[in-house]
Amino acid sequence: MAPIKVHGSAYSTATMRVIAALNEKGLDFDLVPVDMRTGEHKKEPFISLNPFGQVPAFEDGDLKLFESRAITNYIAKQYANQGTDLVYTDPKEQAIESLWAEVEAHHFDPAGSKLNWELAVKPRMFGSETDQAVVEENEAKLAKVLDVYEKRLSESKYLGGDRFTLADLHHLPTAEYLLLTSVKKLFDARPRVSAWLADITARPAWAQVIALRNQALGQSN
Amino acid sequence: MAPIKVHGSAYSTATMRVIAALNEKGLDFDLVPVDMRTGEHKKEPFISLNPFGQVPAFEDGDLKLFESRAITNYIAKQYANQGTDLVYTDPKEQAIESLWAEVEAHHFDPAGSKLNWELAVKPRMFGSETDQAVVEENEAKLAKVLDVYEKRLSESKYLGGDRFTLADLHHLPTAEYLLLTSVKKLFDARPRVSAWLADITARPAWAQVIALRNQALGQSN
Repeated sequence: MAPIKVHGSAYSTATMRVIAALNEKGLDFDLVPVDMRTGEHKKEPFISLNPFGQVPAFEDGDLKLFESRAITNYIAKQYANQGTDLVYTDPKEQAIESLWAEVEAHHFDPAGSKLNWELAVKPRMFGSETDQAVVEENEAKLAKVLDVYEKRLSESKYLGGDRFTLADLHHLPTAEYLLLTSVKKLFDARPRVSAWLADITARPAWAQVIALRNQALGQSN
Repeated sequence: MAPIKVHGSAYSTATMRVIAALNEKGLDFDLVPVDMRTGEHKKEPFISLNPFGQVPAFEDGDLKLFESRAITNYIAKQYANQGTDLVYTDPKEQAIESLWAEVEAHHFDPAGSKLNWELAVKPRMFGSETDQAVVEENEAKLAKVLDVYEKRLSESKYLGGDRFTLADLHHLPTAEYLLLTSVKKLFDARPRVSAWLADITARPAWAQVIALRNQALGQSN
């Protein structure tokens, strides 16, 4: 049994974010499935791991964590000397990377997650109707975020600096789902954003996340 | 002129968060006022510092940052050897601190900021009416967050560990405003949360933030 356990769902964006970081580091782990459709994440034993009832929860030996972005930061720092280097250590370089990681969390993700919910989760998983007003409002918000990214990526190869870091990785799950929806047009309209997404979604560590997700989605159909 | 510049407003919660970290480190800085009532934060020259048009923006020599939590992390790490130690360096201790900092950003702040907007900003600054449905919804959300904190604070003196860190500090501005509203009852009903808030709001570095805020509010009346 691997010392690292991820309690979650291979098709949840926050779980995928954590698995992407583990794969970049080449770390072995056990995925302990949490069935969100039956509400397992809102009951014991899961809520003893995360009192907010959200996947994923994470264990590494006796360390227990939740909040996907805290977990990826832990993985990057605890396993600094193996696999892909996902953070900077110089405080100024780290500050720039951290700034763009905050932009993901506070600008990209709120709009992106609402669009993913309306355009993918509601119609495909629950057979319920998309709210077009919510879609329009959040497409406008996301477009503004992507304009900022287009400019940033004209100055820097990756969002966080000259190499791939957590600031990029954190975008992968939601972006991957949005590329399968009408929101793809917002990415396609911006050449630098498109090239950046093509680059980061082509990473072998990410292909493994998608394979695991597709397997889980196949099982759930 | 100090090498550190904070472009913002002394009564904005995000600006107060950054100034609290600077004060804990005993760092000198210039506060460059941005008048949000006239929309200065949505125009040049400010939007060259933060393309999202939100205060604060930050400069330390030639380093330019925005996003208050990225800025406080930079201050804590770049000035690690002076003033209050605001972070952990051991990856496991840091992970726990980072987890609770994420909880502030993704659970406490969304509910707390909406309550602050409805109960303090709207009636006091704009003379507009509080939306009671929004208040009820977010009081229920905040109550759940504070229940988690009450349990956490029975196991640990501070949220992030055995000493005051950024995980606590980030709560200060919104909590301080909420203590002046009817939301105070949610804090008062939880003895460990109340004691924690009494402790962290009594810090001399925080008293300086409040003095600066009160001066700014006085000038704006």
